[in-house]
Amino acid sequence: MEEEKRKVREYILRHQSKGVRYLQRVVQEGSIRGQESSAQAIIIEKCRELGMTMDIWEIGGESLTNHPVFCSDRNDFKGNPNAVGILKGAGGGRSLILNGHIDVVPVGDLNSWEHDPFSGHVESGKLYGRGSTDMKGGTISLLLALEAIINSGITLKGDVIFQSVIEEESGGAGTLAAVLRGYKADGAIIPEPTNMKFFPKQQGSMWFRIKVKGKQAHGGTRYEGVSAIEKAEILLQEIRNLENKRNSRITDSLFSSIPIPIPINIGKFSSGSWPSSVPDIAIIEGRMGVAPDETMEHAKQELEQALQETSNGDSWLKENPPIVEWFGASWLPGDLEIHHDLVRVLSESFTEVKSISPIIEASPWATDGGILNKVGGVPVVVFGPGVTKMAHDANEYIELKDVFEAAEIIAIAIMKWCGTE
Amino acid sequence: MEEEKRKVREYILRHQSKGVRYLQRVVQEGSIRGQESSAQAIIIEKCRELGMTMDIWEIGGESLTNHPVFCSDRNDFKGNPNAVGILKGAGGGRSLILNGHIDVVPVGDLNSWEHDPFSGHVESGKLYGRGSTDMKGGTISLLLALEAIINSGITLKGDVIFQSVIEEESGGAGTLAAVLRGYKADGAIIPEPTNMKFFPKQQGSMWFRIKVKGKQAHGGTRYEGVSAIEKAEILLQEIRNLENKRNSRITDSLFSSIPIPIPINIGKFSSGSWPSSVPDIAIIEGRMGVAPDETMEHAKQELEQALQETSNGDSWLKENPPIVEWFGASWLPGDLEIHHDLVRVLSESFTEVKSISPIIEASPWATDGGILNKVGGVPVVVFGPGVTKMAHDANEYIELKDVFEAAEIIAIAIMKWCGTE
Repeated sequence: MEEEKRKVREYILRHQSKGVRYLQRVVQEGSIRGQESSAQAIIIEKCRELGMTMDIWEIGGESLTNHPVFCSDRNDFKGNPNAVGILKGAGGGRSLILNGHIDVVPVGDLNSWEHDPFSGHVESGKLYGRGSTDMKGGTISLLLALEAIINSGITLKGDVIFQSVIEEESGGAGTLAAVLRGYKADGAIIPEPTNMKFFPKQQGSMWFRIKVKGKQAHGGTRYEGVSAIEKAEILLQEIRNLENKRNSRITDSLFSSIPIPIPINIGKFSSGSWPSSVPDIAIIEGRMGVAPDETMEHAKQELEQALQETSNGDSWLKENPPIVEWFGASWLPGDLEIHHDLVRVLSESFTEVKSISPIIEASPWATDGGILNKVGGVPVVVFGPGVTKMAHDANEYIELKDVFEAAEIIAIAIMKWCGTE
Repeated sequence: MEEEKRKVREYILRHQSKGVRYLQRVVQEGSIRGQESSAQAIIIEKCRELGMTMDIWEIGGESLTNHPVFCSDRNDFKGNPNAVGILKGAGGGRSLILNGHIDVVPVGDLNSWEHDPFSGHVESGKLYGRGSTDMKGGTISLLLALEAIINSGITLKGDVIFQSVIEEESGGAGTLAAVLRGYKADGAIIPEPTNMKFFPKQQGSMWFRIKVKGKQAHGGTRYEGVSAIEKAEILLQEIRNLENKRNSRITDSLFSSIPIPIPINIGKFSSGSWPSSVPDIAIIEGRMGVAPDETMEHAKQELEQALQETSNGDSWLKENPPIVEWFGASWLPGDLEIHHDLVRVLSESFTEVKSISPIIEASPWATDGGILNKVGGVPVVVFGPGVTKMAHDANEYIELKDVFEAAEIIAIAIMKWCGTE
């Protein structure tokens, strides 16, 4: 296989300018949610050029929207298809899903951008634009890896299923649709921006809202009312206790360098409308981290139970218990044990390209890997070029060097995993 | 004086239906802030009928708006005058200000009202409508008292200065304008709805806003940020400590039945805009009660200093101290010592009418009495018909019986205080 490795590495090296132009074109077709079709068309064109069998479809239907894991604020996905390209192997090898999402988050305040958010401007080895890091750079690494293998005349034994999906940023409806359509494999790589680290485990998360009742009164006689803010403070304290308790249980070495492996973040607190009134309602909104080996249901129950027990210790809250809602987005955690062969294969490939060992950690955020893993039963490693911090920022950019290195590592891993003839 | 007392009490008794109709007319002319002129016209007409010398003027000008105590959200008061009616005494008696405000608070949700808010509907001895309790009922008590004295042919020795002012609900610009125009007296009665109690002392108040800085981060790595909510909770705790400390200093027996004589109410708390972000700003708004014998400046300094000291004990808050603003409305406290002759005169009059002793307390809210007392140097007792709880509610009403009893008590007190020939 050394000869094959040399070929694909040389191919990628020789076609760097072409790769940059290609990433530039994909970034220039801004693909904010609901407007993914033009960028998707460029991806599909490339897959066809590479001779892959294409499956292009508009997601939807009750089997998707009624699925317990389905999570999106829209129900109509017309005009913006999912795209899957299949590179059929010769047989006798392991199959591999390569998954990237085409949707990007909104650009935010335009004044914060130095260049047009969809410029694809290249300067000092960086390519700028919304989606460059999250995660068009990673998707281009996948396609460069496949192009290098195919155009080097290498035949794989196992099947490769390349997926360019919509709706990752809103909770993974695109990847869920692909799983429900039957796409499963012996392993999967998702090149989200991990800064070239391996994330075999990913923190899941979901959003909650807690409504806390008080009793209105005039501020001058505040003792005649019950402050919803004060009652909410009791619950905030309990949420911090629960966060401590939940995190003290996590002993996985992948989390050893993470101060709070599965945080419970309070993102929003609003109560009251008048300085001199006692507020009668407080609303807390937050994000609960979910451990890789935990079900969403277990995490939900634990929060609800903790709030209930605390409320039982307070005469007002006992009579007026807080109401907990799980709303908006939720992301399943991903859980692959560190000794899985996919991790070994990727690690070897990494070391061959970079001459150092990879950093293997748990991610502080979830990806579509959670759905592939927990719904599809697919072993997933999240690994890709780009830095998380960049992902949703103004002036998002990606280091092009990392895109090419990731392409090399992934190309070698594909050959090792699927086998070559 | 027994004969004179009998006359005025009989006059009021005989003219009850006329009194009800008069209160009805004044309530029917809704006088929400900025629309006081029609209701004011009815008051002015009555004063003219009683032969009072009228001073009707539109408040404003720099001497008012630049006054340190001036507090209003408008600068233009055109079209809605202050009205003062003077009943000149024969000489040799003490002067008395009788002060009522004509402005009423908004009606709120119309659906909560059983009758039109400005119906003046009378049923089972109650008169309904916005302003009936706060404080047109009280103002009618004043005018009935004066009418009874004048139409009974009684001549007072001291001057009576009847004031119907605008802008009490927003912080007292109307009464401040009257004080600055030179109206002062040896005593004053303000018939705000005290439920027939005497309030020689009134709690002052002012509004504050505290801005607390945090540091944004993704909720999944919340340890990379600093939660503005958590930092604000430290300050909320300190505000409660300060409230304890300030109230433990109050030993005045007038406050003995009040659980928290000068509360610090947190009325509003808002922070964050996204469940999975660490919020970088929290805004607290509240109302600080001010003791009768305390200056506003002292109360402000005490809060600011407490927050500063607490912030010094927290490494983040020390570097990012909270910003305190004093905004919106503020009301001066009122402070009359309980043995003042005005309290004695009113108490005697009360007992003569009701055959019981009055309840003398400190009020949990301020009135224009604070301005009359602290800016004008006038001894003030707040005493009137109606229940505070009703004041700003839907279906506001007043017990007519109390309006007439208050009129009797005030009429007798006027005669005792000013003296009769």
